[in-house]
Amino acid sequence: MPAGFRAVGVPIGIKRSGRPDFAVIATTSGPAAAAGVFTRNAFAAAPVRLTRAHLAATGGDGPAGSGWADAILSTSGSANAATGAVGDADQLQLAGSLAAALGTAVGRTLAFSTGVIGTRLPVDLVAAAIAARIPGELSTGDEALVAAARALMTTDSRPKWASARLALPAAGGSDVEVTVSGIAKGVGMIHPRMATMLAVILTDAATDPATLHGMLRGAAARTWDQLSVDGDTSTNDSVLVLASGASRAAPVRDGDPGAAALGRAIEAVARSLARQQAADGEGATTLITCQVTGAGDDVDARAVARAVISSSLVKAAVHGRDPNWGRIAGAVGNAQAAESWVLEAAGLGAADAAARAGTPVQVDPGLLRITVAGHAVYAGGPLPFDRSAARAAMTAHEVVIRLDLGAGEGSGEAFGCDLTEAYVRENAEYTT
Amino acid sequence: MPAGFRAVGVPIGIKRSGRPDFAVIATTSGPAAAAGVFTRNAFAAAPVRLTRAHLAATGGDGPAGSGWADAILSTSGSANAATGAVGDADQLQLAGSLAAALGTAVGRTLAFSTGVIGTRLPVDLVAAAIAARIPGELSTGDEALVAAARALMTTDSRPKWASARLALPAAGGSDVEVTVSGIAKGVGMIHPRMATMLAVILTDAATDPATLHGMLRGAAARTWDQLSVDGDTSTNDSVLVLASGASRAAPVRDGDPGAAALGRAIEAVARSLARQQAADGEGATTLITCQVTGAGDDVDARAVARAVISSSLVKAAVHGRDPNWGRIAGAVGNAQAAESWVLEAAGLGAADAAARAGTPVQVDPGLLRITVAGHAVYAGGPLPFDRSAARAAMTAHEVVIRLDLGAGEGSGEAFGCDLTEAYVRENAEYTT
Repeated sequence: MPAGFRAVGVPIGIKRSGRPDFAVIATTSGPAAAAGVFTRNAFAAAPVRLTRAHLAATGGDGPAGSGWADAILSTSGSANAATGAVGDADQLQLAGSLAAALGTAVGRTLAFSTGVIGTRLPVDLVAAAIAARIPGELSTGDEALVAAARALMTTDSRPKWASARLALPAAGGSDVEVTVSGIAKGVGMIHPRMATMLAVILTDAATDPATLHGMLRGAAARTWDQLSVDGDTSTNDSVLVLASGASRAAPVRDGDPGAAALGRAIEAVARSLARQQAADGEGATTLITCQVTGAGDDVDARAVARAVISSSLVKAAVHGRDPNWGRIAGAVGNAQAAESWVLEAAGLGAADAAARAGTPVQVDPGLLRITVAGHAVYAGGPLPFDRSAARAAMTAHEVVIRLDLGAGEGSGEAFGCDLTEAYVRENAEYTT
Repeated sequence: MPAGFRAVGVPIGIKRSGRPDFAVIATTSGPAAAAGVFTRNAFAAAPVRLTRAHLAATGGDGPAGSGWADAILSTSGSANAATGAVGDADQLQLAGSLAAALGTAVGRTLAFSTGVIGTRLPVDLVAAAIAARIPGELSTGDEALVAAARALMTTDSRPKWASARLALPAAGGSDVEVTVSGIAKGVGMIHPRMATMLAVILTDAATDPATLHGMLRGAAARTWDQLSVDGDTSTNDSVLVLASGASRAAPVRDGDPGAAALGRAIEAVARSLARQQAADGEGATTLITCQVTGAGDDVDARAVARAVISSSLVKAAVHGRDPNWGRIAGAVGNAQAAESWVLEAAGLGAADAAARAGTPVQVDPGLLRITVAGHAVYAGGPLPFDRSAARAAMTAHEVVIRLDLGAGEGSGEAFGCDLTEAYVRENAEYTT
C-alpha cells in the first residue's frame, strides 16, 4: 500500500454468495491527484457518470477525466447500469454517506460498481455499511489493499494486484522511494475500448492531475486497450489513478525525467494487471500474448496484435493446442487501426488519429513470419515444423504468438485468452 | 435453375470424408454479365485474386468487380489461401483446364475455393475431374444447382439455396417471367466485411455488369454485411451474381423500374441465404435476428443491429434462453458505424462515408425500447415481464430481438446465431 492511502474490503451482503462485495479506498490526509479513463459505452453506468462529473468539478481547466479525490467507493454484485435517473440518485446518496463518514466534500468521492446490468443498488445496505465501518475499519496495511481487490471481484477466480517501486528526488534533493500499486478485476465483457473493467492504481508520488492523466492515457493505450476477453465492452469500465504525494518526493510534471520514470512504473503495473485479467478471462485456461515486430509503426503493430488475440477461431485453436497458423494469418489480414481516441491516447494528433482510425493495416503475406509457442510455422509461406512438439509447447499457461511483418520498426503487443466450453456455460447458464 | 445456366456438383476426393467437393456452374450459350464482392482480408486467397483479375480484364471501364463470365469453378476442402505464388499458379492452371473443356477463354472463368487455410489444391485431381466431367455432366436441372450447393459445403450441416421470380418486360413488349436463384455456404469465420463466405446468385434476366454490380453492392450492404457468426472474416469470401439474359426479358439498366424489381429479387435471395447461413452457424441452435427501428438513419440502425448479434454475451444468453436485456443494452451502447466501403455500398458519398465510418452511434437510454422473443423487457428503464414465458419463447428456432431507439425513421436488421459449447468443440478439436 503506497503511503497516504488506507482501504477496506469486506462482504456486506450485496452478493448472495457471501463473498466480499464492498470496498473503500481513501486518502489519509487531504486529496490526491486523480485521473481516470472510462468506458465509451453509451449506457455508461451511474458510478461512471458520477466519477466523471466529480473529476470535472474538481479538475478545473485540466483534461477531462482528471481532478482531485479523497475516496473511492466500490460495490460489487450490481452494476447500477441502465437504471436511469433512480440509479444516479442512488449513487449520489451513497457518495453523500461516504463524504459524511470521512468528513470530506461529496465531489471528492469517486465510485466503481460492477455486477448485473439493470438492477438497483441496495442503497440502505451500503449506506449502513459505510456508517458502521468508515473510517473505523480503514487500514493502511498491504492486506487492506488485497482485501479491496477481493471485493472488486465478480466472476474473477482470483484477486489481481501488482506493484512497482522507483526512486524520485525529494524536495530537499536526495532520492526517496516511491510505490505504485494497482488492483483490478476482470474477467468478462472485456474488449479494447479506451479502458476496460475496473482497476485502480495508487501511488505516493506527487504530481498534478493533468500529468497523471497523460501518464494513464498512454499506459492504457499500450495495455488495457490491447486486452480482449470476449469482444464486449461493459457499461462500467473505469480505471483510476490516485497520487497521494505522501512519499515526500518532489512533485513531478509532464516533461520531467521523474515523470517519465513514474509513467513507466504506472505502465508496468497496468501491464501486469491487464495480463492477470486476460489469464483469468471467463472460462479461460491459457493466457495468449501476441507480440508484433517489424510493423510500419506501433499503431499498426498494436492493431495486428489485437486482431490476433480477438479472433474466436485463434482462441479456440489455442484451447485445442492446435498450432493453426492459417487462422492467425486470417486474423492478421483483418487488422484495422484502433478508434481515433485510442490513437490520440497513443500520441497521434487529432487530425491524424481521425484519418487513421479503422483503416486496414497493409500486410504483405510474403514478408510475414509467425512463431507459435517458440515454433516457427510460417515465413512468407508455410514452414515444416514438429507439430506434436508445438502442441506440447501450447499446453503452457501462456502461449506467445510472435509475428514479424517485415515492414518497419513498429512493435506492440496484446493480451487475450483461449475460448472454452466453460466460457459458454458460464454465460449461458447464469445471468451475469 | 434460371435459364441459360447448367451445373454439376460431385465428390472427387479432395475431402477425405468423401463428401461433394467439386462444382462447376457454366452458361449454356455465351457469357453472362457478372458482378462480385470479395473479402477485404489482406490474405485474400488465390481464387479471389484470380476472380478479381478476370473480372477486371473483361469489365472494361465498369466498376471493379464487374465483367463477363462463362463459368465458375468451385473446390472445397482446401482454401488455397496463404499459399503464395504457387497457389496462384495452381488456380490459373485449373482455370486453363476449365476454359479448354468449355471452349472459352481463361479470362472468362471465375473461381471459389474453401477449406483449410495454408494447404495447396490437389491440382492433378481437380484437372482430371474437369477433363472427365466437363461439359458432359453439366445439367440444366434444378437438381444440378442443389448438387452444386452441396459441393460448396465445409462445416455446413445442410445446403443453402433460395429462389425468387418476377415479371420483366420482354424485348417485344409483353412480360416474361424471370428467375433469380442463389446458393451459398457458411458457416464459420463469418463477419460483416463487405462480403462474407461463398454465394452465387444466377438470373436469366438481362443486364449489364455495372447495373448488376450496383444491385449486388446494395443488397450485400443490407444482408451479408449484417451477418456475423463468430467475428472472423475469412480469406476466401466471395459473392458472385451472373445474369445470362436467357429469359428473353429486355435488358434492364440502372434507373429502370425493371432494374429496381430485379434488384429487390436479388436482395430477397441474398437475405434468405444470409439467414440460412446464420441459422447454420458453427455449433448454432438458434437464429438471432435483431430488427431496429427509430434510429437516426438506416446506417445507425444497421450498426446497432450488428452490434447486438455480434455480442458474445448476447449470443451466450440466447443459448441459455436468458432474456438478459442488460447484455443487449450493453451491446447497443457499443454500436459503431460500419467501415467506409460498406457505407458507400449503402449509398453514402465517399466523403460522408469516410467521416462517418467507425463513429459511435448516439443512443439515448431513456428512449430505448427492447423486446425479446415478443416480450417487452425495457422501455427507458426495466419493465416487469413474465420471465418464464420469455424463456419458453426463446426456445424457438429463431429469436427476434426488436429495438426502437426513439430517435428517427431509420431501420435495419442483422442476423447471427447463439454461441454454444459445440462451436468451441468444433473449432478446438479440429483443424478447419
